[in-house]
Amino acid sequence: MSNKKYVYLFNEGNAKMRELLGGKGANLAEMTSLGLPIPKGFTITTEACTQYYTDNKQISPEIQEEIIKNLRILEEVTGKQFGNVENPLLVSVRSGARVSMPGMMDTVLNLGINDEVVVGIAKKNERFAYDSYRRFIQMFSDVVMEIQKSKFEKIIDELKSTRGVKHDTELDANDLKELVTKFKELYKREMNVDFPQDPVSQMNEVIKAVFRSWDNPRAIVYRRLNDIPGDWGTAVNVQEMVFGNMGNDCGTGVAFTRNPSTGERKLYGEYLMNAQGEDVVAGIRTPQTVEQLKNEMPEVYEEFVSYANKLEEYFKDMQDMEFTIEKGKLFLLQTRNGKRTALAALKVAVDLVSENKCTQEEALLKIEPKQLDQLLHPIFNLKALKESKEVATGLPASPGAAYGKVVFSAEEATQLHDNGEKELILVRLETSPEDIEGMNICKGILTVRGGMTSHAAVVARGMGICCIAGCGELIINEAEKYFELRDGTKVKSGDFISLDGSTGNVYLGKIQTMEATLSGDFATIMSWADRIRKLKVRANADSPKDAKVAYNFGAEGIGLCRTEHMFFEPDRIFAIREMIVSKTTEQREKALSKILEMQRQDFEGLFKEMKGYSVTIRLLDPPLHEFVPHTKEEIDALAKDMNMSFQELQDVVEGLKEFNPMMGHRGCRLAVTYPEIAKMQTRAIIEAAINLANEGIVVEPEIMIPLICDEKELRYVKNIVLNTAKEIQSQRNSDIKFSVGTMIEIPRAALLAYEIAKEAEFFSFGTNDLTQMTYGFSRDDAGKFIGEYYDKGIFESDPFAKLDQKGVGKLIETAAKLGKMAREDIKMGICGEHGGDPASIEFCNKIGLTYVSCSPYRVPIARLAAAQAVIKQK
Amino acid sequence: MSNKKYVYLFNEGNAKMRELLGGKGANLAEMTSLGLPIPKGFTITTEACTQYYTDNKQISPEIQEEIIKNLRILEEVTGKQFGNVENPLLVSVRSGARVSMPGMMDTVLNLGINDEVVVGIAKKNERFAYDSYRRFIQMFSDVVMEIQKSKFEKIIDELKSTRGVKHDTELDANDLKELVTKFKELYKREMNVDFPQDPVSQMNEVIKAVFRSWDNPRAIVYRRLNDIPGDWGTAVNVQEMVFGNMGNDCGTGVAFTRNPSTGERKLYGEYLMNAQGEDVVAGIRTPQTVEQLKNEMPEVYEEFVSYANKLEEYFKDMQDMEFTIEKGKLFLLQTRNGKRTALAALKVAVDLVSENKCTQEEALLKIEPKQLDQLLHPIFNLKALKESKEVATGLPASPGAAYGKVVFSAEEATQLHDNGEKELILVRLETSPEDIEGMNICKGILTVRGGMTSHAAVVARGMGICCIAGCGELIINEAEKYFELRDGTKVKSGDFISLDGSTGNVYLGKIQTMEATLSGDFATIMSWADRIRKLKVRANADSPKDAKVAYNFGAEGIGLCRTEHMFFEPDRIFAIREMIVSKTTEQREKALSKILEMQRQDFEGLFKEMKGYSVTIRLLDPPLHEFVPHTKEEIDALAKDMNMSFQELQDVVEGLKEFNPMMGHRGCRLAVTYPEIAKMQTRAIIEAAINLANEGIVVEPEIMIPLICDEKELRYVKNIVLNTAKEIQSQRNSDIKFSVGTMIEIPRAALLAYEIAKEAEFFSFGTNDLTQMTYGFSRDDAGKFIGEYYDKGIFESDPFAKLDQKGVGKLIETAAKLGKMAREDIKMGICGEHGGDPASIEFCNKIGLTYVSCSPYRVPIARLAAAQAVIKQK
Repeated sequence: MSNKKYVYLFNEGNAKMRELLGGKGANLAEMTSLGLPIPKGFTITTEACTQYYTDNKQISPEIQEEIIKNLRILEEVTGKQFGNVENPLLVSVRSGARVSMPGMMDTVLNLGINDEVVVGIAKKNERFAYDSYRRFIQMFSDVVMEIQKSKFEKIIDELKSTRGVKHDTELDANDLKELVTKFKELYKREMNVDFPQDPVSQMNEVIKAVFRSWDNPRAIVYRRLNDIPGDWGTAVNVQEMVFGNMGNDCGTGVAFTRNPSTGERKLYGEYLMNAQGEDVVAGIRTPQTVEQLKNEMPEVYEEFVSYANKLEEYFKDMQDMEFTIEKGKLFLLQTRNGKRTALAALKVAVDLVSENKCTQEEALLKIEPKQLDQLLHPIFNLKALKESKEVATGLPASPGAAYGKVVFSAEEATQLHDNGEKELILVRLETSPEDIEGMNICKGILTVRGGMTSHAAVVARGMGICCIAGCGELIINEAEKYFELRDGTKVKSGDFISLDGSTGNVYLGKIQTMEATLSGDFATIMSWADRIRKLKVRANADSPKDAKVAYNFGAEGIGLCRTEHMFFEPDRIFAIREMIVSKTTEQREKALSKILEMQRQDFEGLFKEMKGYSVTIRLLDPPLHEFVPHTKEEIDALAKDMNMSFQELQDVVEGLKEFNPMMGHRGCRLAVTYPEIAKMQTRAIIEAAINLANEGIVVEPEIMIPLICDEKELRYVKNIVLNTAKEIQSQRNSDIKFSVGTMIEIPRAALLAYEIAKEAEFFSFGTNDLTQMTYGFSRDDAGKFIGEYYDKGIFESDPFAKLDQKGVGKLIETAAKLGKMAREDIKMGICGEHGGDPASIEFCNKIGLTYVSCSPYRVPIARLAAAQAVIKQK
Repeated sequence: MSNKKYVYLFNEGNAKMRELLGGKGANLAEMTSLGLPIPKGFTITTEACTQYYTDNKQISPEIQEEIIKNLRILEEVTGKQFGNVENPLLVSVRSGARVSMPGMMDTVLNLGINDEVVVGIAKKNERFAYDSYRRFIQMFSDVVMEIQKSKFEKIIDELKSTRGVKHDTELDANDLKELVTKFKELYKREMNVDFPQDPVSQMNEVIKAVFRSWDNPRAIVYRRLNDIPGDWGTAVNVQEMVFGNMGNDCGTGVAFTRNPSTGERKLYGEYLMNAQGEDVVAGIRTPQTVEQLKNEMPEVYEEFVSYANKLEEYFKDMQDMEFTIEKGKLFLLQTRNGKRTALAALKVAVDLVSENKCTQEEALLKIEPKQLDQLLHPIFNLKALKESKEVATGLPASPGAAYGKVVFSAEEATQLHDNGEKELILVRLETSPEDIEGMNICKGILTVRGGMTSHAAVVARGMGICCIAGCGELIINEAEKYFELRDGTKVKSGDFISLDGSTGNVYLGKIQTMEATLSGDFATIMSWADRIRKLKVRANADSPKDAKVAYNFGAEGIGLCRTEHMFFEPDRIFAIREMIVSKTTEQREKALSKILEMQRQDFEGLFKEMKGYSVTIRLLDPPLHEFVPHTKEEIDALAKDMNMSFQELQDVVEGLKEFNPMMGHRGCRLAVTYPEIAKMQTRAIIEAAINLANEGIVVEPEIMIPLICDEKELRYVKNIVLNTAKEIQSQRNSDIKFSVGTMIEIPRAALLAYEIAKEAEFFSFGTNDLTQMTYGFSRDDAGKFIGEYYDKGIFESDPFAKLDQKGVGKLIETAAKLGKMAREDIKMGICGEHGGDPASIEFCNKIGLTYVSCSPYRVPIARLAAAQAVIKQK
């Protein structure tokens, strides 16, 4: 049908063909060209994999034919043959996606062996022959037929115990022969057929199994966590076997060109003599360090060092290599850019530049921005962590590690904190805005409900506190102050637990933490990034404390100050509630006037910390029912405080209830119905700016009107703001500058951006709400079904974490274009959770936004990602 | 600044200049050209009005100058002068928008009179002089200064009582002189200045007042109800006065060329001798019929008849004319196309064609499609209605009239109905899906909450039952079974009330109703419409009963069958609940199997009624919590029935709760998590179609998957449907045809319509949800603030009733284009509430949809509107 080439010999490819050949295949091809000792083989392309899925999980005859053709060539160049007893070809069959997904997909070694071939090999080396065969049977059974590995392990363990030996290596040829017999029996019991003997059939089955493994659950999860599209597919590498298990002049190992934990420039790795690859990983025997090879086989070691240097030089990055020594001869089985810690990533990047191995731009691309999180938050002491076992796992909602005593309410936290308890973990079904104060003094937060963008998650990230959200396996009883683990263990108020917000793991007891420290390399990398990037980076910050963190992390302004968080403090919430129960505008104005002074101080504090950078202040956004109590007891208490009857207050609370609060009476809709709120807030902002100006700090506040869906709506609210500001300016005889703009967070606002931009001096894309409404997904509810969307391959990533460029991004792009058409110098930014996501930042750079705004702790990530976006788009 | 012409003399314009001169001005100009006896004058354009608003409610000097220039011309041609005692020019100043808005805006007569002028006029006719002056003072004070009319009426009443007379006409010149004095005193008391004497200032003030009246609250409401844009503005007509109040050879009247109630071809109207225009309307004296003029002033009558014929001929439509007789001479003051009842509209249209006065296409455009509603539903006996006073008013949510005994729950209704009570009105805070059965047997529904697209409204319209929704002034106590009116009256269970669903009025007691009858004219008009229209018209129908109504009204298929309504019947809800509490797929399948048989019968019934027309069946859409009880008592009862513990069921119910159900676990998301639901429904549909095919009725069911946001999601659910269908077809050895498509009701689906159309054989635009998400408006909650949006001029119409073409329409248009690009023969329809709205239907026609689908009772409206769309777009 097609003229596509689906199979490439290693000497037909090169490193640039990564998309087609996968990372492993492309690098094997490149190493072959470089003349390195690579066992011969061929790569079946990623396109063959996607074709396999298109063809309803079948390998088409054309592709099948091409594989056989290349197998015949391989037989020719190796001089060996499939199934030939005298001179058999054995091969490894390994997956290899475009980007490395270590351990996610399947590998089978020693393929080609069967009852006859094993006899032929046994003539030369009996133990090796049966060792290889028993390994093959086990791997094939596991990978292709999904027979549990443990069933084979059990047989081995029984035999070892009969023989009274500890290691596999102590089993002799006869023992291994016995294992082969037992393994084949097990296979037949499980599958009702004999173990397959034809090498070509064996190979076909394994190739299909590797293709299938692209879609196994752990691979799907890995792809989602690492932003790898599901339609890439994996390539398959068929390669002549070399054997590390032929005797004591054989071995196999892995090594990094630099230390992946620290970045230190020194060969780092380990190997095992007389072993095959999986033995190193399995940890049955303790491997030796690569340095020990220097003594054991000095020539092989020197040869390996020279290859390692050559590869690092060639690929301009730290390499992670696999090698095998067969009867004293060194073979390289693969090389790839090594995974590394954030600390190592920074050091390697800086060192490579100073060693003139790559440019600054190339170096910047080697650092995974999200990794920087590791450096900005405390982490567990690694030794202590190794000794602990997690008892529950939720979503890693805000990074960092913490331990503390469990509390079940924000009030309890505040109380204990006031009594001197500093190590507290707040555990809740879900948090709500009233919990803010309690959250702020806790070391960590654990919620049963809610996703990555739930209230708890968003607030914790903003505060830099670790948080695990949506830990649905806990059964919580907030009233009786305990929660139950899956095994029935009850954890009570006051018990210690530890949280790892970077993994989502919950532990019992205290695990010691260590503070993160920023190296000089961090500053170097940031300075390179700042020079290159075009996007400004701002932070979402609601308090002077957050603003200070943001400023110190390099934020160039505040992109979103949510004023409602300020309203929950005990001395304010009462006034807010007074406003809510008001029946007339005058009453409302009176209540609001009590808040004015405090709001002004808030803004003065923010402006001071930002030292002249722009501060975007969003007018009150949440529905008013977030400010009133909902239980009978609370309403009763408040009614007394407010001098109202229970019924009266109850009616107000009932009246505020909404079916879908997300799409209800909130945002600018509050300003339309109660202009006095917008007036008070404008007054606070403008007066704060005037006061600061009088102190010599010039700030141009950006007043942001949320949830706009129509230009007339914006005009109406904007006029309230302008008229109020004008009045104050003339009273105070001030001409401070400020601007008025809007959030673009409702699909209609994006569609009508041309009209809206006529009224708005800036746009801030509120991608959280825009994503909710574009998808029709309530982020508070989507947790219930989104898991199935991942499992069923419908979604590959969380649209609330990674901007959906096809849908939501389309709206943003359209709005950005229309906005610029209407107002050439319009300032445009993004202030949703996506502002701190590297892929989303790349998108913002591409469509020409002015800035991104994210949690303070994500500012360094955004700075790096913004620089990478420029480099990639060159 | 501009070269625009803002003022036109009557002889400078014509009927085509309606947009600029307003309807009244354009027709006055046209009549002037026709040589009819029109008092001279000029028109200030609608552009002057919009300029007035742009200039912050000021008339610019240029426009002011142009007005004066034309005033001088008017003085010249009439030979009279403003303020001239001997020969004064008096004028009327009247509003005149592009389309007639009767009574909505302001008019002032006799302008130009003052303390000096009145003396001059008095020399000729003293009574007339002071009569005119007192009228002018009152009108000016009311219209320009907003001094309450009643204050003037009180003075008149006092004087009449002193004089012992009944009618104004019995007051003599001295009395009127006294009134003038007292009126001027009142004016000074109220305004603190003397009554203005300069005619030019008087005129300027009145012109501004007329411009202002464009934005008075009643005009805003009228525009909203009649889809008139707020930026059109009104023209102002300044016209020489002619006087019907100069004596008994004078008079004034209004007349229609045909009977506006019945359409009968006969002059119809009334007049008053010795009176000015407002007297006819005010009803102080009983006017005479126009026929009586034949006896009183036969020549004038003949002249009038000839003009009437001429005008009807000229404007090709029934005319509504104002005339004045001044000292035996006839003047026409205005003509316009007459407002008429639906019955009259049909007759006039058919008659005009048979009289060869217009074409069928022209005739179709003369009928307001929405009016047809009047003909399809029962109405109150008009005499009985006149004697009744409404006690509350809500939203006219579903047309028709009904009386009945009040019941407060669906169960109560069912019970009473079973006992033989047939006249029942269901009164509820709001209805929910469980109420369906009870709603179906009631004559009318009244809810306190909810808007035009609330559950009650949508269901009632579908059932053709009258409904008043959102009647917020009622205080309801469902538990104690009473509601309270604004005056404190309690209405208890069993009391009779009457509802007018076409006006939203609630009455106490029984008002007799009369059934609507469809005339032969209706059939004629429908047949013309069907010949012209391109859009197919389908109905939204969930039961064979609804389907039958729809078929009889001419529906060409069902565009939306909501399967969930079928699930609420008592014998089914239990099985549904069993499914919901199931913990495994097997349990769920078992519960679903109990519903299968019933669902299949539902579909067989629908297919039968539609006699081969297409039926689009939407898979289960609402969130599952709609099917479970929520109060403690109900949960307790159900738990017992289901053999579960209270706590167990309570946990299930709690677990289903959602923050924003509209954007939660519903639609296709249910099919993704519980494919067995989609399987059962598919089975019911396909089996029903096969069974019918075996009976010789061939139907091609359209299976519609709701709430799609991504093509992979659609593919996943579609595969469930296809695989299930395939299995049944092979079992039953059938090859019946069916298609699978999707709703486009989420913004992202519209944006990705190209990709989605690759998977979908049809699109059905679900404009209710699409509007909600595009605006970020929850239709259940928007009622709380949308009123302010109208009041503040932000919104002019309800986007849930009239499709928002700028935003939502943009998405639909884009999706339609993309859909056709991906699949040339894609079938596309609309099935939201908008499917029955004429303006929205015009839009659907323009963008080339295949069909619209609406409530059965709206099918005739849609047929007519679809024809009008074609004619208008020619």
